[in-house]
Amino acid sequence: MTCISHLESTADGSTLAAGELHNVHAGKPLLVRYDLDAVRASVTPRQWAERPGGMWRYEELLPLRDQANRVSLGEAETPLLHCPRLGERLGIDDLWIKDESRLPGGSFKARGMAMAVSMAKELGVSSVATPTAGNAGGALAAYAARAGMSCYVFMPDDTPVVNRYEAVMHGAKSWLVDGLIHQCGAIVREHQPAMGWFDMSTLREPYRIEGKKTMGLELAEQCSYELPDVILYPTGGGTGLIGMWKAFGELAELGWLKSEKRPRMFSCQSDTCAPLVPAFEQGLEHGVELENPETKAAGIRVPKALGDFLVLRAVRESGGRAMAAAEEGIRSWMELALELEGVPLCPESAACIGVLAKALKEGHIGAKEKVVLFNTGAAQKYVEVMACELPRIKPADWQPGMA
Amino acid sequence: MTCISHLESTADGSTLAAGELHNVHAGKPLLVRYDLDAVRASVTPRQWAERPGGMWRYEELLPLRDQANRVSLGEAETPLLHCPRLGERLGIDDLWIKDESRLPGGSFKARGMAMAVSMAKELGVSSVATPTAGNAGGALAAYAARAGMSCYVFMPDDTPVVNRYEAVMHGAKSWLVDGLIHQCGAIVREHQPAMGWFDMSTLREPYRIEGKKTMGLELAEQCSYELPDVILYPTGGGTGLIGMWKAFGELAELGWLKSEKRPRMFSCQSDTCAPLVPAFEQGLEHGVELENPETKAAGIRVPKALGDFLVLRAVRESGGRAMAAAEEGIRSWMELALELEGVPLCPESAACIGVLAKALKEGHIGAKEKVVLFNTGAAQKYVEVMACELPRIKPADWQPGMA
Repeated sequence: MTCISHLESTADGSTLAAGELHNVHAGKPLLVRYDLDAVRASVTPRQWAERPGGMWRYEELLPLRDQANRVSLGEAETPLLHCPRLGERLGIDDLWIKDESRLPGGSFKARGMAMAVSMAKELGVSSVATPTAGNAGGALAAYAARAGMSCYVFMPDDTPVVNRYEAVMHGAKSWLVDGLIHQCGAIVREHQPAMGWFDMSTLREPYRIEGKKTMGLELAEQCSYELPDVILYPTGGGTGLIGMWKAFGELAELGWLKSEKRPRMFSCQSDTCAPLVPAFEQGLEHGVELENPETKAAGIRVPKALGDFLVLRAVRESGGRAMAAAEEGIRSWMELALELEGVPLCPESAACIGVLAKALKEGHIGAKEKVVLFNTGAAQKYVEVMACELPRIKPADWQPGMA
Repeated sequence: MTCISHLESTADGSTLAAGELHNVHAGKPLLVRYDLDAVRASVTPRQWAERPGGMWRYEELLPLRDQANRVSLGEAETPLLHCPRLGERLGIDDLWIKDESRLPGGSFKARGMAMAVSMAKELGVSSVATPTAGNAGGALAAYAARAGMSCYVFMPDDTPVVNRYEAVMHGAKSWLVDGLIHQCGAIVREHQPAMGWFDMSTLREPYRIEGKKTMGLELAEQCSYELPDVILYPTGGGTGLIGMWKAFGELAELGWLKSEKRPRMFSCQSDTCAPLVPAFEQGLEHGVELENPETKAAGIRVPKALGDFLVLRAVRESGGRAMAAAEEGIRSWMELALELEGVPLCPESAACIGVLAKALKEGHIGAKEKVVLFNTGAAQKYVEVMACELPRIKPADWQPGMA
């Protein structure tokens, strides 16, 4: 049973009622607040652990009122994989990857969309729309299909092909837009009233963040409520980082963390699209705006995020940093993870490897610290980045000298 | 603790010792046998259920001696998804999809390779090789990477691009061969002695089948040990079907099934590559041999499988059938599952939808039966089959009339 209390505006702190449809307030995102005393009275971490695995076990700290409205494709707990070989290569003892590629559709977007579509169903929505530059469109299309809702997706015309095709095959009406993601978002906002769409854009609805929050809840449980020293997270729209930081705050307030320590949150971008890095370094509240930035990590190609100030706030509160990795290293960092650990790291998370290497060198992260890096999607979905030539032979021609 | 007893030849029933490296005996596959009394004395289904989810919880009925040799990427239990909308479209009440796309690397091949590579590690192997026409090569490469073994992969030159790239990026030395999968297999067998490779080809080593068997163990547990009426399974090499049938036999012998009923196993192929279908219909022991068959379902493009007689035996014992679906329907059956249920059905499993429709029409499956269909991989890995054109627009040009 949810212990939701109300929604709170990040613009001015004003309170909005739960159980009603909301997008933003005064142009800023809404955060869901809970009655944490009621949570504490209703459940214990041990009881959570006894329920079926995955994000829905945390139902007291999630917004859905009636579990019959769950729209689910089976969101199992994602594995937290110890990566000693990769750690050794980077010069760190205690490196872990939380592999979100194992969620439905092969990306972490499933958590947010499972929650947002479930809430949309509960609140009577029958048609949803979103801009996307990566995995979000396919994830929304999949959950909308599962819910029997109609779905509209607008994507820049250089969106990875697998993301295009999955949206279409899940039955979403989909367009390639000659423009960037914020222009796709503008189409959704302009036509939303007439079309009766509910706008599912990042942080323009309050529940994707609650789904993403479960990355933090799950990680806490997997670490026996003793959180790691550092989290490295690729940052586009930032929902995941904001969500995890919110989760750790809620767990702390509940008194369920074993120690006061919370992770230093490292927001990782590519140096060709890093609006948060100068903002962090110069003490700005918002990310700097970029003109048409390029990166092969499609999911972090976000020139201006609505929730940038929430990401920067979380990073600073945590004692972490916003850092950028060199764009030209992305494919080779993917290879490192795939070759040394068998983990199919996506290009966005490859940027976290670059940041980790740099942060170790610059002393922002210590070699003995426990570091968790999030793999937000399956490498296999990035066919353009994976592309390579294989040697071709006739069956009779292979010789040991070729090995 | 494993309760392995010995290995048994499918050629002549002779017994081989466990704890030693084996490939085949008299050219035929080996099956792992257990001391089922010892299993019964060691564990109960309830105890299995209390362990962490996924294939490794069944350790008594798996061959690994020392759990420290597990080579794992976090093989969580795959969801069993009720699919009422798809069922309604096909005219069946109780349809379920077991979604194996949620395993590491996005395919069911993970189960077999996790087990086979763990056993190879336990038995001292440091170099592995395989032919592949689909997901097996990438899965082997991933687990070999995780284990720190060297890996060699040979694939026909029309293998799906994602399968090529993932093998390479996982560090496997990989070649495109101008030929079919059996010619790739011949390269492995010819050079295996000199190269010191362990041959991981389908059914040429005894443990992939034990990994695949866990599909059956997991399904039994998810159904509270009351098995469904029908299982539909796409059949290339056949390891999964043989493995599940073996699992059900072991559970029956243990006395752990709630009723005597075992599922009728439907082996599903495409009508352009269906060696088992005429064999089944004509009462032959082996599949018919095909010349260079084509199908867009790469994983079931297997003209001649080493274990075909074991598949046919299981299908017949179960009261099921070998049936073929029309090749030209494959993409539209994928769409059905993606659009109606949000499940990313692969082309191989799309053939199961075609077989289900046909079997319902011909009366081989009843509309009231409980039917479980296996999705053996993620649709997203089949970029060639998914490919489609999306409408392109300028940002200002979208109009409600386009919806």
